[in-house]
Amino acid sequence: MADSITEKVIQAVKQFDMLEEGNRVIVGLSGGADSVALLYCLKSLEKILGIKVYACHVNHNLRGKESDGDQAYTESLCKDLGIELRVFSVDVMGASAKHKSIEEKARELRYEAFCNLSRELGAKVATAHNACDNTETVLMNMLRGTGLKGLCGIPPKRDYLIRPLIYCSREEIEDYCKENKLKYVTDKTNFSTDYTRNKIRIELIPKLLEINPSLFNTIRRMTYALSVDSGFLENMARDALDKAGIGDGIYETEFLRNLPEPVFTRAVSLMLKEKNIEPTSLRINGFGKIIRTGHGKINIEKNKFAVVKKGKAEIQFIPQKYRQINT
Amino acid sequence: MADSITEKVIQAVKQFDMLEEGNRVIVGLSGGADSVALLYCLKSLEKILGIKVYACHVNHNLRGKESDGDQAYTESLCKDLGIELRVFSVDVMGASAKHKSIEEKARELRYEAFCNLSRELGAKVATAHNACDNTETVLMNMLRGTGLKGLCGIPPKRDYLIRPLIYCSREEIEDYCKENKLKYVTDKTNFSTDYTRNKIRIELIPKLLEINPSLFNTIRRMTYALSVDSGFLENMARDALDKAGIGDGIYETEFLRNLPEPVFTRAVSLMLKEKNIEPTSLRINGFGKIIRTGHGKINIEKNKFAVVKKGKAEIQFIPQKYRQINT
Repeated sequence: MADSITEKVIQAVKQFDMLEEGNRVIVGLSGGADSVALLYCLKSLEKILGIKVYACHVNHNLRGKESDGDQAYTESLCKDLGIELRVFSVDVMGASAKHKSIEEKARELRYEAFCNLSRELGAKVATAHNACDNTETVLMNMLRGTGLKGLCGIPPKRDYLIRPLIYCSREEIEDYCKENKLKYVTDKTNFSTDYTRNKIRIELIPKLLEINPSLFNTIRRMTYALSVDSGFLENMARDALDKAGIGDGIYETEFLRNLPEPVFTRAVSLMLKEKNIEPTSLRINGFGKIIRTGHGKINIEKNKFAVVKKGKAEIQFIPQKYRQINT
Repeated sequence: MADSITEKVIQAVKQFDMLEEGNRVIVGLSGGADSVALLYCLKSLEKILGIKVYACHVNHNLRGKESDGDQAYTESLCKDLGIELRVFSVDVMGASAKHKSIEEKARELRYEAFCNLSRELGAKVATAHNACDNTETVLMNMLRGTGLKGLCGIPPKRDYLIRPLIYCSREEIEDYCKENKLKYVTDKTNFSTDYTRNKIRIELIPKLLEINPSLFNTIRRMTYALSVDSGFLENMARDALDKAGIGDGIYETEFLRNLPEPVFTRAVSLMLKEKNIEPTSLRINGFGKIIRTGHGKINIEKNKFAVVKKGKAEIQFIPQKYRQINT
């Protein structure tokens, strides 16, 4: 009889078209319970799904010997399971990302490694996010302030990334490890400095489970329904931008300002993202306002201006003048 | 200097076009802090907003002498403030609503009284729902399982109903009562049997406030943004149904099944609501499925069938045959 983790992984893989026969898939392997279970489960499904499993470990070098111990464990596990493993060693502390926490920088470097390996092997990347992570993400976004998109939680599939454990709870995963005699490391840095996520996980979720013992499933159903709504509105905005665009990142304001509100704000958000500008509500509102009034110029970010003039809207890069050097 | 409650009430009234000059407004007055504050605040704004304030108390007769005491208090308060008060006495226990809790029945009878008086006086009805109620409602819906609509919280305005305290927290309201020396009764039945809402209010909200002290504002902004999205999708569904309808509650399935998913499910939900059937996801999915396959018949509720045949979808009432009586 198949265990529930295997069943749920197959269900998620099929529902979200995560994998098809002949696919290669790289498991992001920290060595923790989630990723060890995911690796073992996908390996056991290689024949059934017609896939080939690889693993990738990113050593963040944040905990000295402990980090190296985790790496050594993933190496021995993959050797035992006959899985090809790639190890990347990254320098999180040296990474030059301003205004970012250590977690954010580590995450960025980790996904960069995943992305590169994915290209090299022509493979998808499976990360071990589970139903509990999904619920935590929804609550965290809600508490920080969010709109529809933030309530959609962790997408089960995005570009080359897939999350086959999205239907499994942490408890089920730990049981699966026990049943299959899988050892795993306990990654102490995992969110340990993220005050909000910790508080949500340790203090909030147990209270919520008292009210609704099926919390993770309830939230999973909600995020699925919301993703359908959100994706539809995002597509409408993308279509609208295609129609409003006249090339070179310039858009007709007449077309934009006649869009219904939810499509308008999403279109403005996409215009910002196109220029690698984080679409905060302050920026969306500011840019949206000058598009609506038909003219104006606002400083969006250092050296970047949103400009609306003669029926056209665009984001211009206006670099600082070279400092004059007195000779 | 104006106090924050008055400012926030004016803000809400203007933002949501709740009231205009010459309007009559009936305050639903339980005698609790919220409704007493609302009554006093709107009365103080009569000249500024150009409105005329009335009050309506519904005695649910659920707590014997205590209920009568509440009624007496509202009578003396309105006399002091020179406000015309109407009192309705309802029989909650005798109301014949199946599968409904006492709270639900009381609510139904209360709103029936509001609605009747609203018609009689040609007035809007203001209820005292505040920012905390809004947050509780969002969390309750989320814990019970919901989609976009349930996350929109309490609508600030719907038909003849307005909620001018929607930006005010319970704490601010109690402070306002203290400052203005307003007495109020403590309605002990108020949600006292609603396990989930109580648990959310007493155990959950304080934890959430530890993480985000501006919780009520954060959720208010979220529900506002979501309402815009939700309203837009609802309108699309209504427009689609108008186009798919051929009269007598019959709809062209060809048109319906080509709708994008979020519009389709909302259109099916509206078809159920039109026939006074609660649109549960089970019913929406069932009816949706036979619309998509192009034929079928399912029992939606006692004596009610969703029928899809020859490119047409409708809900048919098929009453039980009269029982044959052996003579």
